[in-house]
Amino acid sequence: MGETDPNTREPIDVEAILEALESGETEQIVAIAKEAHPGDVEVAFERLEDEDREQVLDQLPAEVLSAWADYLPASDVEHRLNTLPETERREVLESLSDDELVDFLQEVDEEDRGQYIQRLDEETRQISEDLLKYPEESAGGRMTKAMAVVPVGLTVKQALEVLESIREEAELLSRIYVVDEHRRILGKLRLRDLAFSKWDTEIAALMDSDQISVNALADQEEAAQMIARYDLMALPVVDDEGRLLGVITHDDALEILEEESTEDMERISGIGGQSDFAYLQTPAMTHFRRRFGWILTLAFLALSSGFVIHAYEAVLTNYYILALYLPMVVAAGGNTGAQSATMVIRAMSLGELDTREFWRVIWKEGRIGFLLGTLLGVCVALQIQFLMPPGMITGSLTPLSVAIVVGFSLMAQVLTSTLIGAALPIGAKKMRLDPAVVASPAITTVVDVSGSIIYFTLAGAIFR
Amino acid sequence: MGETDPNTREPIDVEAILEALESGETEQIVAIAKEAHPGDVEVAFERLEDEDREQVLDQLPAEVLSAWADYLPASDVEHRLNTLPETERREVLESLSDDELVDFLQEVDEEDRGQYIQRLDEETRQISEDLLKYPEESAGGRMTKAMAVVPVGLTVKQALEVLESIREEAELLSRIYVVDEHRRILGKLRLRDLAFSKWDTEIAALMDSDQISVNALADQEEAAQMIARYDLMALPVVDDEGRLLGVITHDDALEILEEESTEDMERISGIGGQSDFAYLQTPAMTHFRRRFGWILTLAFLALSSGFVIHAYEAVLTNYYILALYLPMVVAAGGNTGAQSATMVIRAMSLGELDTREFWRVIWKEGRIGFLLGTLLGVCVALQIQFLMPPGMITGSLTPLSVAIVVGFSLMAQVLTSTLIGAALPIGAKKMRLDPAVVASPAITTVVDVSGSIIYFTLAGAIFR
Repeated sequence: MGETDPNTREPIDVEAILEALESGETEQIVAIAKEAHPGDVEVAFERLEDEDREQVLDQLPAEVLSAWADYLPASDVEHRLNTLPETERREVLESLSDDELVDFLQEVDEEDRGQYIQRLDEETRQISEDLLKYPEESAGGRMTKAMAVVPVGLTVKQALEVLESIREEAELLSRIYVVDEHRRILGKLRLRDLAFSKWDTEIAALMDSDQISVNALADQEEAAQMIARYDLMALPVVDDEGRLLGVITHDDALEILEEESTEDMERISGIGGQSDFAYLQTPAMTHFRRRFGWILTLAFLALSSGFVIHAYEAVLTNYYILALYLPMVVAAGGNTGAQSATMVIRAMSLGELDTREFWRVIWKEGRIGFLLGTLLGVCVALQIQFLMPPGMITGSLTPLSVAIVVGFSLMAQVLTSTLIGAALPIGAKKMRLDPAVVASPAITTVVDVSGSIIYFTLAGAIFR
Repeated sequence: MGETDPNTREPIDVEAILEALESGETEQIVAIAKEAHPGDVEVAFERLEDEDREQVLDQLPAEVLSAWADYLPASDVEHRLNTLPETERREVLESLSDDELVDFLQEVDEEDRGQYIQRLDEETRQISEDLLKYPEESAGGRMTKAMAVVPVGLTVKQALEVLESIREEAELLSRIYVVDEHRRILGKLRLRDLAFSKWDTEIAALMDSDQISVNALADQEEAAQMIARYDLMALPVVDDEGRLLGVITHDDALEILEEESTEDMERISGIGGQSDFAYLQTPAMTHFRRRFGWILTLAFLALSSGFVIHAYEAVLTNYYILALYLPMVVAAGGNTGAQSATMVIRAMSLGELDTREFWRVIWKEGRIGFLLGTLLGVCVALQIQFLMPPGMITGSLTPLSVAIVVGFSLMAQVLTSTLIGAALPIGAKKMRLDPAVVASPAITTVVDVSGSIIYFTLAGAIFR
């Protein structure tokens, strides 16, 4: 993290907002609000308590709300909209860009959505309804229709005239799409190609005919990965006939990939569902609901481990030294399984790995697991043989026999856990499930059971 | 994942490359190479075995290598460079953009670096040496100097002339920076503002004076987060006096944030170090080295749990039914601790949370932990009271007494684990450590010990 620095822009001062609120200086809030970048407002809002947030919202003039709408949770925007007079409400909605408006409409309750749409002017309503046809998490659901399009056959002068007429609407004039009469993409132009060329040049001669595009029904993650892979500023979205429908821009890609990374991390730690809110904005009850499912499931699954230990009562009570190494054997499996699962899940998310590579992954993880297990087993066996506190190993047992049992159990446990950790997520993906869902929690439970069985069976066999 | 579709660009066919290799059709490889987008090549290379990769590399013409250099691991680029004749080697290096070249130089061995720099022409060498002064993971280490800069005071016509002369060098003409005589940023222009304005207009009248910038020594992650927060196409990088040094572009931000997410995920699962290579490209020995440290440490830390169980021999062997629920109590702590740690670490990474919010996080997680623990404790207590297989609970014990011990242990264990899981990462950040390093593995070990102590102490007290 960098230091605070006079040349670096500082986020908006949350303390100042809170102070202004406490002292009731509403003009102060409005003044801060007007100056602040919406990006900073987003950060400040993430840290405000619910009541404080509502108080700030209630002070916001309509034009500030328009500027902020894309950066605030839909419920906050809706809260403020509902307190505004009808005309201002419509002004705010119509001032939003088409993808911002659709994001908002996708997030509000379905009943309210119809009401908001009715209020829009004809053109905005048409565009919104078009965009709302696509699933929220598809490329179509994320695109904007505000891109620059010119028909092939124009000259530079004609193209510039077209662009000048749409310059304020189009999100990105830096990429201009050249289309045929069916609106299929023929190529793309940069504004600089037009600005620095002779006016009578045909645009077809200037365009780059590289045509990367994504289908409107493709997953938004696929679109974001294409933007990342090809370093694009915008990715055209097309229908099944290849007709240009809209574009997804680089800032959307960033947002999508951040959301997907968050989702993967949460799944890996056994957190279900999704939240559109920041951590502090999310009520404790919502956090609770997202976590309790796995906690309860895993608790009862852990009973199977308990049954294994319970079943080996004779072995454990006869050779109580086994209790000392039981947590180690079990934990080593959970830890190595979580490592290999995480590596494989992340590699699949980044597109580095596919289910076709199953056997190559198994071969790699097999070697890694063998190395990890062997070295760990040897280290612990040496500790038992040479560094055991006196009096711990009693009766018919020798340090060597314990070292052999623990060392070989660790080897077997680590090798199998590494393989299970790698195989389960790939298997899940093969069955079209989210690989991250079967990650750490499920793996830990499985290898807890297998570890206990390996350990007690080996001990029973060798000590007898 | 979307379906394969004629309109969506398909990644390069790895199988085709492999086949061409096997049959020795080198022209085929070169043909595929010339047509492929470097982004597709990156994906294909991630899946090729080391030997196959080297064979493909050996076929690459110099101009293809130039186009691909930024998408391939530095070691691959170096491998091919060293087999090229001196003049071609220099051509490839000089054809790279300044930030690509610096990325490459940062990754190669320090001895080799000097040799490569010597080969460059005067201007390129000067720029590289300038950029190499900044740490690899700083904003300065990631920036490019190829941006568009115009001095204030020009007219639109003069500015367009300046831009025309640098149009092919500048990475992004979409954002043009207006600077004063000390090269301090006064504002930014869009090419469209110039292209559609009268030639004699002063550019000062057209520019947007919003000046978001980042210090060259700031962490690259801070720069990437600013690009995300403010939806920027490029972020200017400045020195301590506020003079414009370069820019970081949106595609760098994407790359940086993906790297940081990967690093967080890996840390959370106890994987150390970093790898510049994709999963399959990384040799098993490297994977092994990144994982073994934590596995060994955690194994020996698990001994402390073992000592606790060992110390409570009398309680466990007298009331062997406790063995049945021991894994559940211990695992519930690890699972809830991992959940809260993940939530807090991710929120901090996304800038939603700061160390100042410590007590608000504790208050929130305390409530969540209390809810999780109570509900889990009640569910399990009910199972023990009403759904216990007959014959499991013997001697002086009743289902009720076991239900009370297990239920309250779960409550206490889940509540403390949730709090520990949230507190440790924030504490680590306060001490300027990476919060993710003290995540799941460390937390699991701590709560394994605390869980066993809670469980056996409570059982000892209630059963007596």
